[in-house]
Amino acid sequence: MRCQRCKGQASVEVRRHHTAFCNEHFIEFIDRQVERAIEGGKMFTRDDRVLVVVSGGKDSLALWDVLHRLGYRTSGLYINLGIGEYSQESQRKAEGYAAERGMDLLIADIPHDYGMGVDAFARATGRVSCSACGLSKRYLFNKVALDEGFPVVATGHNLDDEAAVLLGNLLHWQTAYLARQAPVLPSTHPALVKKVKPFYRIAERETAAYAIIRGIDYIIEECPNSVGAKSLLYKEALNLLEQAAPGTKQSLYWGFLERGRPLVQTQDDPDLRACVHCGQPTTAEVCAFCRMTERAAARMQVRRHSAHAASSDAPPETPSRERPVPAHPVIPAG
Amino acid sequence: MRCQRCKGQASVEVRRHHTAFCNEHFIEFIDRQVERAIEGGKMFTRDDRVLVVVSGGKDSLALWDVLHRLGYRTSGLYINLGIGEYSQESQRKAEGYAAERGMDLLIADIPHDYGMGVDAFARATGRVSCSACGLSKRYLFNKVALDEGFPVVATGHNLDDEAAVLLGNLLHWQTAYLARQAPVLPSTHPALVKKVKPFYRIAERETAAYAIIRGIDYIIEECPNSVGAKSLLYKEALNLLEQAAPGTKQSLYWGFLERGRPLVQTQDDPDLRACVHCGQPTTAEVCAFCRMTERAAARMQVRRHSAHAASSDAPPETPSRERPVPAHPVIPAG
Repeated sequence: MRCQRCKGQASVEVRRHHTAFCNEHFIEFIDRQVERAIEGGKMFTRDDRVLVVVSGGKDSLALWDVLHRLGYRTSGLYINLGIGEYSQESQRKAEGYAAERGMDLLIADIPHDYGMGVDAFARATGRVSCSACGLSKRYLFNKVALDEGFPVVATGHNLDDEAAVLLGNLLHWQTAYLARQAPVLPSTHPALVKKVKPFYRIAERETAAYAIIRGIDYIIEECPNSVGAKSLLYKEALNLLEQAAPGTKQSLYWGFLERGRPLVQTQDDPDLRACVHCGQPTTAEVCAFCRMTERAAARMQVRRHSAHAASSDAPPETPSRERPVPAHPVIPAG
Repeated sequence: MRCQRCKGQASVEVRRHHTAFCNEHFIEFIDRQVERAIEGGKMFTRDDRVLVVVSGGKDSLALWDVLHRLGYRTSGLYINLGIGEYSQESQRKAEGYAAERGMDLLIADIPHDYGMGVDAFARATGRVSCSACGLSKRYLFNKVALDEGFPVVATGHNLDDEAAVLLGNLLHWQTAYLARQAPVLPSTHPALVKKVKPFYRIAERETAAYAIIRGIDYIIEECPNSVGAKSLLYKEALNLLEQAAPGTKQSLYWGFLERGRPLVQTQDDPDLRACVHCGQPTTAEVCAFCRMTERAAARMQVRRHSAHAASSDAPPETPSRERPVPAHPVIPAG
């Protein structure tokens, strides 16, 4: 195949656009798609400081790379989620990328700041890992952006990610989630930072091709918690459809943005107030992240206490109900 | 596994309901689901004459079988579409089913009445076969029902069929099609018969199990035109999802009916008038079926004329523009 632009040997085929590019013009294609997303969605300008959330994977490092090359004012944010070796390795990739290029990287460290990682949050509160992880990431990138004065946070979600989330929301007709799914979520409260997804026009295999062509050293392994995740199943189903009819994912997601989302976007913005514990915006008295981390901390305390009691050969000195540490602290179930 | 009802040996598992049944109680389960569909959707009563469109396949014969057993006043309608040996074989199955049980079957014969089958309609008018076929069936079952005084037409579309159509409409955000997808399409004009799908709560493997248990002899082959059809691809993708999460198809389609369809159901009923050629309801001057069959007839005439001209060794007696049969009849393109 020939490059659509220069007629030289093509290296990347983009079937859904019936085209192909050489390395140089593929990068140009990506740049053009990202600029269209940023300008079309009024995501940010070259004057705005943009916080790019980087996981160490191909999508987010590629996004940071594109935005930096295009002259946007970016800093990276790596969030250590405490997922064992996977987190350590992905942090090395993010740090390596930034250090090599002299780019500004912030680190948020959940195990350091909260005493445990997202897996422990999940176990202790009966959430699935991906739910505890997503909640933690959304909380932290908003908090860091606010604390550090960034008006906008960019994430590396690509077309495949968005199409898979959309399919999941449609399979269960989650109309509230459908209403909130968009490449641009404006700030609806002074303490809620604008969130944007400049890669929503770019397919996953294209972000991978970009990262390879640009020589970005990223973590190839998937998160160990993603094994059996519904999102991977939805991607598999969409890949089957895309294979038979290139452009299906784009048609699903872009069509939703054009014709589907306006139908569900009826509800008003919720009333937000400051969490009484951390000050972050929430619809409740205490925000979901504080509720999760506080419940996790309380449960961990119970576990340590029980373990101690079980390992002791001596009979307890006092009946358990009189112990100073409550054996059954009141923890809301929901 | 044990039958949920009688605790005897189960023969059919219904994973999406976390249950299983013996033959007898599976039939009872199917009957209950069909009654719920009919009553919940106010489809028809035991006083109404119902025209059941039967293709000779498992779904439509199973539907006719259920409705007949449940005491509804039914007649079958078989439409010969002129798809070679497949049509002949499926007609034999429909006729055999009706004859064995002494049930009333009407036959509509497209090649006999219109001089060619749906494949020829498709070829001559540049439609895909499934489009020409669907248009012909919708036209004919409405016409036969009107002519024979049936207030309602029932088709054997099952949950898998409806979920696949829905997925296709969502992948392309066909909002007009979404608005019209429902198990009950009421009559919106005196010449437009009500259409219902009493099997919309029943999965495809359940209609197959029903047909086998009831000893119905149906045509097993798929229509030869369905090879490569998008509907089969959508079913494959949905089967992948259903396998991993039983209940996915049900959640997609029933969720759409409950929460999705009310969002798209905004447009008014179109203004219908009588087709000037056949009198059937249409939004245009001439209905789509008459346009298709008339264009097909005109093209066939052109082909025969050209073949005659090419095979003749003698020079034409008159220049072609002066021939009495126009070489290029004016045929609208769209």
